[in-house]
Amino acid sequence: MNVLVWNENRHEKKNPIVSDIYPKGIHGAIAAFLSEDTVNVKTSTLDEPEHGLTDEVLIGTDVLIWWGHMAHHEVLDEIVEKVHKRVLEGMGLIVLHSGHFSKIFKKLMGTTCDLKWREADEKERLWVVDPSHPITEGIGEYIELEKEEMYGEHFDIPSPDQLIFLSWFEGGEVFRSGATYQRGKGKVFYFRPGHETYPTYYNEEIQQVIKNAVQWVNNSDTPTPVYGNTNPIETISKKEKG
Amino acid sequence: MNVLVWNENRHEKKNPIVSDIYPKGIHGAIAAFLSEDTVNVKTSTLDEPEHGLTDEVLIGTDVLIWWGHMAHHEVLDEIVEKVHKRVLEGMGLIVLHSGHFSKIFKKLMGTTCDLKWREADEKERLWVVDPSHPITEGIGEYIELEKEEMYGEHFDIPSPDQLIFLSWFEGGEVFRSGATYQRGKGKVFYFRPGHETYPTYYNEEIQQVIKNAVQWVNNSDTPTPVYGNTNPIETISKKEKG
Amino acid sequence: MNVLVWNENRHEKKNPIVSDIYPKGIHGAIAAFLSEDTVNVKTSTLDEPEHGLTDEVLIGTDVLIWWGHMAHHEVLDEIVEKVHKRVLEGMGLIVLHSGHFSKIFKKLMGTTCDLKWREADEKERLWVVDPSHPITEGIGEYIELEKEEMYGEHFDIPSPDQLIFLSWFEGGEVFRSGATYQRGKGKVFYFRPGHETYPTYYNEEIQQVIKNAVQWVNNSDTPTPVYGNTNPIETISKKEKG
Amino acid sequence: MNVLVWNENRHEKKNPIVSDIYPKGIHGAIAAFLSEDTVNVKTSTLDEPEHGLTDEVLIGTDVLIWWGHMAHHEVLDEIVEKVHKRVLEGMGLIVLHSGHFSKIFKKLMGTTCDLKWREADEKERLWVVDPSHPITEGIGEYIELEKEEMYGEHFDIPSPDQLIFLSWFEGGEVFRSGATYQRGKGKVFYFRPGHETYPTYYNEEIQQVIKNAVQWVNNSDTPTPVYGNTNPIETISKKEKG
Repeated sequence: MNVLVWNENRHEKKNPIVSDIYPKGIHGAIAAFLSEDTVNVKTSTLDEPEHGLTDEVLIGTDVLIWWGHMAHHEVLDEIVEKVHKRVLEGMGLIVLHSGHFSKIFKKLMGTTCDLKWREADEKERLWVVDPSHPITEGIGEYIELEKEEMYGEHFDIPSPDQLIFLSWFEGGEVFRSGATYQRGKGKVFYFRPGHETYPTYYNEEIQQVIKNAVQWVNNSDTPTPVYGNTNPIETISKKEKG
Repeated sequence: MNVLVWNENRHEKKNPIVSDIYPKGIHGAIAAFLSEDTVNVKTSTLDEPEHGLTDEVLIGTDVLIWWGHMAHHEVLDEIVEKVHKRVLEGMGLIVLHSGHFSKIFKKLMGTTCDLKWREADEKERLWVVDPSHPITEGIGEYIELEKEEMYGEHFDIPSPDQLIFLSWFEGGEVFRSGATYQRGKGKVFYFRPGHETYPTYYNEEIQQVIKNAVQWVNNSDTPTPVYGNTNPIETISKKEKG
Repeated sequence: MNVLVWNENRHEKKNPIVSDIYPKGIHGAIAAFLSEDTVNVKTSTLDEPEHGLTDEVLIGTDVLIWWGHMAHHEVLDEIVEKVHKRVLEGMGLIVLHSGHFSKIFKKLMGTTCDLKWREADEKERLWVVDPSHPITEGIGEYIELEKEEMYGEHFDIPSPDQLIFLSWFEGGEVFRSGATYQRGKGKVFYFRPGHETYPTYYNEEIQQVIKNAVQWVNNSDTPTPVYGNTNPIETISKKEKG
Repeated sequence: MNVLVWNENRHEKKNPIVSDIYPKGIHGAIAAFLSEDTVNVKTSTLDEPEHGLTDEVLIGTDVLIWWGHMAHHEVLDEIVEKVHKRVLEGMGLIVLHSGHFSKIFKKLMGTTCDLKWREADEKERLWVVDPSHPITEGIGEYIELEKEEMYGEHFDIPSPDQLIFLSWFEGGEVFRSGATYQRGKGKVFYFRPGHETYPTYYNEEIQQVIKNAVQWVNNSDTPTPVYGNTNPIETISKKEKG
């Protein structure tokens, strides 16, 4: 399985707090823990040519992980089209945190994906609401993060196919923080945590969820359905018999 | 309630079979039977300025009905953006037949919306699978159409929120022919029948379904959720308590 | 519309704290605010003959509201069967709070309906996650209850058809506190709040939700589907044509 | 993985047509093809003591396959309770054909599970509507069965978590013929085909679906959620910190 971790990689360049936490970038941190398990992990970032998402790269990717925030608008529409096409063809997609506002996630959801937010060093507790789902394997009742950005309802998404996690925040809000969707042949998992100013992606339970999700969204071997103009089965059958 | 029936209105101009069946256009036929019940019904077509979908028109529309087929690509992206925004704000949307491939439906679904099809004068029978849904009120076990275009699975849509009708076709296929979705505050209903060369929209049961759906998708009075940066409720509450 | 409020009415007899809050019983309090809107509201309690749920009563009921807690096991199985049958026929059902463990709710869900709980005078905040659903009409972003019993995930229910409210609790838990289900022709709404030692059913927003839900679950006029052995449609059609 | 194939095994004893097709019983035929893949396959039948579903057998079963028809009422309620408990604990369940009316399926669904039917040697075509689901792996666009009993809508079940197959019947009906549900930790798959007077379980594609489903419903290793009275996390956390 080939996993590609895509990161905007801008906060890391502009904010020393972020680069101190993630010296190799958020993509580097995610790729590092995924490499413990998965044979092939690569990374791409916004400022590479074609954002590092060339046709060749996309065709060779089974699972794409997406982190973006301040530069969603800089992602070229034609690249978004290509990523979208690949998801519908079966490439798994994991959208993290502020990726809720990425072009690719909004294109797959069809909604604004808007929400409430607050940066106030609040405790988050992600409760498992689907304890027998493969994505929660090895996770206990909840994951606790000492400090995170708050995301609160209402979260403007289509009703998830499966609701996996619900977050509780110290400041008083709740959030649907783990949700799955099927789009075409592609499996999509949105996972809330991971604000750039906190070391969330070093948390071993968060890492476990992402590892589990990589396995779960991987679906690239399934056959392509037949579409378009078609002959009448019944008539053919009758002729063959006749 | 203000209903707007939008029609591409091209087959009517080019194909005498179609204009014979629908001398006032498909939009005219739909508007005519809706006018029996609903106070305000208007129509717009592709070739009007801004496709008859100006800001003023859209703001004044509670429910939009969409029929298109051969000229989906001619609908301007900026108009699609406006219609999309209005749906998310609560304007109901009913997408008919070949509208499955319209820009607005694909944008709301996030998938290709592809399917199988055949023009062979086949009998269609639409079975009710949600007999207590308001959209099926007054309909018996099924609606039979003597001749229709066939649409067959696989239909590349997200799993519907509610599956209302399933079609049986003489040639051997089945199709999810009535399906609802919520997108933002907007309620969406896809309804399969209505190929331009058949008098489907004169069928009284088809008319009843569309009338029911107009009532059901109308949701324009609901409040707008609060999004964006927000203050911590708990801190405020504690301060207020003193 | 005929609404029946059913209450176990045992805490009220044994615990003066409860009878002080609800001198006419929880059923009396609920019936009182519903009577402001709805023409016919009646009440029944466990200790009446047949628990006040005779065939005649059930046939005349469009919407049943259920509150029970300490005596679920005393509800006779044959009465549960009758209530279940009526729900599948289209009688709306609103299950409140500790009714999650009632025989009727478990029978409709097919699961244990187990959950976590704590009585510790905690603040509850019910966030609206489906802001355009009729059940949340007139409710803002959330309902705040100063003191309530805590119910926490994991809540062992089938995935709801529609998730309406999510609760945040002061002690650190979350809960799916408003959920809808369709069973047969019957619409079911589970609503979490209302522990007997708190004056929750005097809260005007809680009352508004229950009033909205009464309207929403009412579905008793829909036709009964046809089941059983059936003749082949196609053969008949061909003969008729022939 | 331990698979148990349960069969009523009455038609086989009373009807020579059935015993000619299935000389070792329907359970024997299913066990035979499953044994090609799966290490441990056992069978049990109605007339064994405790229907062959003792505590020991159930505890040792990861996936249970259920075929019943004429003697649903003879299955003891206490055995149904035990099977139900095991499903909620994570034992996978595959319900075949006329098992739609079994006590265990109705108990898990909460509805009548009623439907329309006809025995008229009709062709059935099961269309794949979820082509990237593991249960449809290796299956093309549809499975065709030359002769089967017809089952038609309306099928009185809760809306499936995932709709996998839709059947087309020669006589004019459609049916939701493959559907999944989660109940507690248990995964449930209902699969329509397999009337006792046809050799359906010798069809290789039908066998492939059942083999796939055995893998998919197997979920018995997942942890058991924590329920019941619980301490306040926040208070504990604060004390520990303090």
